[in-house]
Amino acid sequence: MTKPYDALESRSREQREADHLASINGLLQKLSQKPEWEDRLGGVAALEQLSDLQKLPVRYKSDLPEQQRNNPPFANFLLAEASDLRRMFFSPGPIADPESRQTGWWGTARALHHAGFKRGDIVQNCFSYHFTPAGAMFECGLSELGIAVIPAGTGQSELQAKAVAHFKTTGYVGTPDYLRTILECADELGLDSSSLDKALVTGGYYSPQLKEFYQKRGIRVFECFGTADLGVIAYQREMDDVLWLNENILLEVVRPGTGIPVPVGEVGEALITRVDDVAPLIRFSTGDLTAFADSAGCRQDAIVGWRGRADQAAKIKGQFVRPQHIQEICERHPEIARARLEISQTDGKDRMCLMIECSTDDAALFGAIENSIQSITNLKGSVKRVEQLPNDGLVIKDCRS
Amino acid sequence: MTKPYDALESRSREQREADHLASINGLLQKLSQKPEWEDRLGGVAALEQLSDLQKLPVRYKSDLPEQQRNNPPFANFLLAEASDLRRMFFSPGPIADPESRQTGWWGTARALHHAGFKRGDIVQNCFSYHFTPAGAMFECGLSELGIAVIPAGTGQSELQAKAVAHFKTTGYVGTPDYLRTILECADELGLDSSSLDKALVTGGYYSPQLKEFYQKRGIRVFECFGTADLGVIAYQREMDDVLWLNENILLEVVRPGTGIPVPVGEVGEALITRVDDVAPLIRFSTGDLTAFADSAGCRQDAIVGWRGRADQAAKIKGQFVRPQHIQEICERHPEIARARLEISQTDGKDRMCLMIECSTDDAALFGAIENSIQSITNLKGSVKRVEQLPNDGLVIKDCRS
Repeated sequence: MTKPYDALESRSREQREADHLASINGLLQKLSQKPEWEDRLGGVAALEQLSDLQKLPVRYKSDLPEQQRNNPPFANFLLAEASDLRRMFFSPGPIADPESRQTGWWGTARALHHAGFKRGDIVQNCFSYHFTPAGAMFECGLSELGIAVIPAGTGQSELQAKAVAHFKTTGYVGTPDYLRTILECADELGLDSSSLDKALVTGGYYSPQLKEFYQKRGIRVFECFGTADLGVIAYQREMDDVLWLNENILLEVVRPGTGIPVPVGEVGEALITRVDDVAPLIRFSTGDLTAFADSAGCRQDAIVGWRGRADQAAKIKGQFVRPQHIQEICERHPEIARARLEISQTDGKDRMCLMIECSTDDAALFGAIENSIQSITNLKGSVKRVEQLPNDGLVIKDCRS
Repeated sequence: MTKPYDALESRSREQREADHLASINGLLQKLSQKPEWEDRLGGVAALEQLSDLQKLPVRYKSDLPEQQRNNPPFANFLLAEASDLRRMFFSPGPIADPESRQTGWWGTARALHHAGFKRGDIVQNCFSYHFTPAGAMFECGLSELGIAVIPAGTGQSELQAKAVAHFKTTGYVGTPDYLRTILECADELGLDSSSLDKALVTGGYYSPQLKEFYQKRGIRVFECFGTADLGVIAYQREMDDVLWLNENILLEVVRPGTGIPVPVGEVGEALITRVDDVAPLIRFSTGDLTAFADSAGCRQDAIVGWRGRADQAAKIKGQFVRPQHIQEICERHPEIARARLEISQTDGKDRMCLMIECSTDDAALFGAIENSIQSITNLKGSVKRVEQLPNDGLVIKDCRS
């Protein structure tokens, strides 16, 4: 393991939680004086313990486009004027994303440090700088580490390959697959790319085939997980399957659409709380699925990485069924341990079946659940008991082609 | 006129020249200890006066691609390690361009200030950030002024228009024509772009039609002139035809290809000397043509703007004729005040004619000049006396289609 990036990383779990609690309470105190935040705090003025966060409402990223359209540019969620920001982005959606002037704001330097990037490196930054924040995000971290950057952006693979050879680039930052494209392009052009020995990747699937390709070329590739709202949420410290949470991130993993925590190890929706002077986020759902890593010593501040998307609303006969509906059904019937709605199509007709983990096999209960499905979703559905549902965070599985 | 950006601007001409002389001599002293600079300084260890610069060799940007290819990444012209830079670029050519970590290095903040940009603005930066420095260049200046930036890049006009409306963008930085594209796109989409009232443009022809278009919309547009090697060389302070030299720039205007100064007001090749700890440039020809503005009060530190390209080598019957050849002819015959070689084609055959400004009409002189043309260019050419050559910096005019 590399040495810690700073003292924050060496905190005990207790200290870390105490620090989070104190900073969240400081934020709540500040926000509770702002009328536009009243509804958003659910009447909670302070937390006694971190688990009290569950009393606050969840804020969904999927609601942002409409909120920002009605109230541009940031739907009144910013604690500063837009013109006081360093940069503003307009990611597909469109969603406006702010960048504060505060050094270290995107949290990328820590991830780069643990991936072995240091002063003396020459790094090709192959994220786009235009309208989306990824390019600026990693450039900030590289700059904080005193590392020289080639702002390369996406595309122009031949020029990318020539740049690697010309500058003797030592590091790559970008999506997992694009480095391979550059290296193969260099091979075709007969250019030397052997200077490049490290990479930090995110924003795409890092397949076993890619892993093998980079291993064979002696390139150490680390992964991180981040979003345009938050920067780096979690990052690798070693070549294993664990991503460590960034020090400014408080994560809950909940049953999708509900805000209710799942047990450690179970895949659920990521809710993130980030205390910040400019763009605080409280129980913010990015729509991503993950799980706490449950290996010993992980102190519940490490995750298993990205496990898909949580936005599982499905349209059936013209109506939406949402994870909240499934949660409501479960609450009416405490006998249900876990549930998942599967939607299929037979003879052109949509069918819903609620798969449940349940301790009893009581037919009366199943009938009552079917009634609840009807009354809550306004749609008919059957019920089926299963031994164990897959641990994939899916509350609604749409099997229609 | 806006207030000065800093005290440097308020210097007297004498002070400015004395400062330049001192800093160039400091640089020469440093460089003269480096063996790789010996040939590049032409044996000059110090200047007694600024005009002594003419004793040093001219360095042509057009030579950079080959020099850098032979000696990557910066042909040994850098006074720092590449990995100590902030950023590196790979502009078309390809030419590697360095960016120092020093604040203000690109000199863009001064130009932005005089164009009316200030804290509180929200600026859409429509230069590319990828591989070329223009995006980063202006972002640095905007950041130094505390201005929020939307790193928009080139293209995606509809998203650009939506961003103007969503963020209430107040300023534009980019090429002269692209702002019009964005505004017309906003009009088509029924989006409000009236927040945008200022622009700083460069990198293209700012036509009278464009001027009128922006004037009608109440947008104050200022121009500047810069290159990937230097950042902003000169910028507008008022809505007139004068561009003021940046404070770190020492400019000579010379007969193209020669290094010999032309009179004030005459169009010639721009040679730039910039003292810098990382990437000093001495008598560097960017290949651009300009002229000193000769209006009263301009103190020879203002120019008329860009007047075309100086790289006037022409290929005739498989051989290159270069501005240096024309200069050599003029030096052999001091009777020639100014000269320009015109190349035309008749019946598929290339013909050369040397147009000269000359005080005499002596046929023997003309015969001697024709002999010089033959011996210096290895090609036949005729001579024609004219009253006055156009003031356009052209030493070789290729009229072939």
